[in-house]
Amino acid sequence: MKITAVIMAGGRGERFWPRSRSDCPKQFLSLTGDGETMIQKTVGRLSELVEAEDIFVVTNAAYASLVEEQLDMLPKENILFEPAARNTAPCIGLAASVIKKKYGDAVMMVLPSDHLIKSNRMYIDTLKTAVSAAEAGKNLVTIGITPTYPETGYGYIHFGSAESGMNGVYNVLRFVEKPNIELAKEYVNSGEYLWNSGMFVWKVSSIEENIKKYLPDMTEGLDKIYESAGTEAFEDTVAAEFPKFRSESIDFGVMEKASGVLTIPGNFGWDDVGSWLALERVNKTNEYGNMIQGDVISINTRNTIVCGSNKLIATVGIEDIVIVDTDDALLICAKDSTQDVKKVIENLKICNRNELV
Amino acid sequence: MKITAVIMAGGRGERFWPRSRSDCPKQFLSLTGDGETMIQKTVGRLSELVEAEDIFVVTNAAYASLVEEQLDMLPKENILFEPAARNTAPCIGLAASVIKKKYGDAVMMVLPSDHLIKSNRMYIDTLKTAVSAAEAGKNLVTIGITPTYPETGYGYIHFGSAESGMNGVYNVLRFVEKPNIELAKEYVNSGEYLWNSGMFVWKVSSIEENIKKYLPDMTEGLDKIYESAGTEAFEDTVAAEFPKFRSESIDFGVMEKASGVLTIPGNFGWDDVGSWLALERVNKTNEYGNMIQGDVISINTRNTIVCGSNKLIATVGIEDIVIVDTDDALLICAKDSTQDVKKVIENLKICNRNELV
Repeated sequence: MKITAVIMAGGRGERFWPRSRSDCPKQFLSLTGDGETMIQKTVGRLSELVEAEDIFVVTNAAYASLVEEQLDMLPKENILFEPAARNTAPCIGLAASVIKKKYGDAVMMVLPSDHLIKSNRMYIDTLKTAVSAAEAGKNLVTIGITPTYPETGYGYIHFGSAESGMNGVYNVLRFVEKPNIELAKEYVNSGEYLWNSGMFVWKVSSIEENIKKYLPDMTEGLDKIYESAGTEAFEDTVAAEFPKFRSESIDFGVMEKASGVLTIPGNFGWDDVGSWLALERVNKTNEYGNMIQGDVISINTRNTIVCGSNKLIATVGIEDIVIVDTDDALLICAKDSTQDVKKVIENLKICNRNELV
Repeated sequence: MKITAVIMAGGRGERFWPRSRSDCPKQFLSLTGDGETMIQKTVGRLSELVEAEDIFVVTNAAYASLVEEQLDMLPKENILFEPAARNTAPCIGLAASVIKKKYGDAVMMVLPSDHLIKSNRMYIDTLKTAVSAAEAGKNLVTIGITPTYPETGYGYIHFGSAESGMNGVYNVLRFVEKPNIELAKEYVNSGEYLWNSGMFVWKVSSIEENIKKYLPDMTEGLDKIYESAGTEAFEDTVAAEFPKFRSESIDFGVMEKASGVLTIPGNFGWDDVGSWLALERVNKTNEYGNMIQGDVISINTRNTIVCGSNKLIATVGIEDIVIVDTDDALLICAKDSTQDVKKVIENLKICNRNELV
């Protein structure tokens, strides 16, 4: 069966302000210092498994030029634009309709655009296993991540018995919301929980059937979109139908309710790069624990993250600080306060300084 | 007797990097947010006591255009250039020779160019007392500052009995070098010590006599400079003679050895603005103890100094940090590490990045 990939790239990524902006969120940034953006890496690591013509990107119309510029190897018609932000379920429904029109049925790998993977070899192997599991029936397969510490910022997947006849594939008992630290520790220690990575693999027909069952109010709109796909009416139909969808996540809308949900524990070195702190996990730090990009002189500086731009940055006697310099904004933030960066953005919005948001 | 002022403006001011640079040291910067530079304030506060034509500035030739631009009220011939850095004794000798040629004898107030004074009223009164004391004989008068805390970064003046017939004027018993913290506490608690402010008042004839006595190797050069002063040969003579002088401070070379040294305790709110930390003493801080200049959004930020330039600076969750942004360099420094800023400058010099020094 044809294998396709759907890359979800509509996110705003406020947590990487001031580098990320509403007109250039995290997936379009290079955060690893190698010049390649997150979404370029996401597409690039699929080359072994999927043809470029079978990679679809769902994003916001505002990011059209960024996507076309950064992903010029993809056919233009594979870039799908959401006329409104409606969370992941409508996004996936839209992509499923387009793929169904093109191929009738196909395996559909749904992948976030802004995560990092350390071992591409193991990542591809995991996806191949997931594709097999998805092809074998009406299964909805989710890629779980073996947790390495009790993270409270992720949802968890409680998995049960191994699926018979499939190596490394497990039944999902339930999805659980972001836990408190005590619960997170229990989950990690039990060995029965995985992080929910937001990566899914299924046949178009399988997810279609489940959307019909659990999100029936989407059916009519998705049918119209399916009919128009590949015709001149497509853009107008999406513009008319998509905004009518309720905002709903695929996790809550489908996965938590569906039967036949399987998970595959991934051990390929995954990071969702959820805040500036991730930079010291995914990039090399020096002997003092500093993660440094740009022109930086550090005197007696430890465990500090510095993302410079065009000017010299001198750090003297500081510890556990995040410094991000851009042409028009500079952030200096304690490591334990990165979640408060959004307060800066709120402040800017209140003051009508949208050019800085 | 004619009253003149000599403003010493040759200092490099590395401690205000990156705002201060070798081509624009501290005295030519506005550090108080009112747009007036330190040297402009220094000249401005003398207006009640000295005519502009009697104010002399001794500086480095590299700062010629800065001085002329910032002090355009002074006659050009009152700006004296040191062909080489030789500390304060040769600087004062040069100025004394020029003033002697112009006026025969005169009172000469020697003042640093980069200190701040809170009460100009009391400052002028103190200088007037010093002028009277200087005129009354061959006294060398130094302005002391009543210490408010045990500062270890200043030299101290141990003063003795009141000079008879002069209100508020005391004999100097000895000058002492920068003390350790225990000694500094003793000095402050004793009530018998003042900070050495580096401000001096004397007659040209008095300092000339003392230089002859204690720095006799300067006599020949100063005589030649005196002869040439006011003639076309002046510049060439200074260029030939000045570099021959030994580098020597007036404190060590003359004041610590001379007799007839008097001091006047000043209580006019003095600050030598010796490091970035001074900014929170001499400028207003907000309710969180932050001293903020520029376009700054502070979230949960305390006791922090921010000197911005053209861009937004957002501080989140930080405390006791100094942040100074300029067009080509950014400093982020712990308050207790401001003395290490010089290591950044050393590093830049070693790397031949003199454009940033």
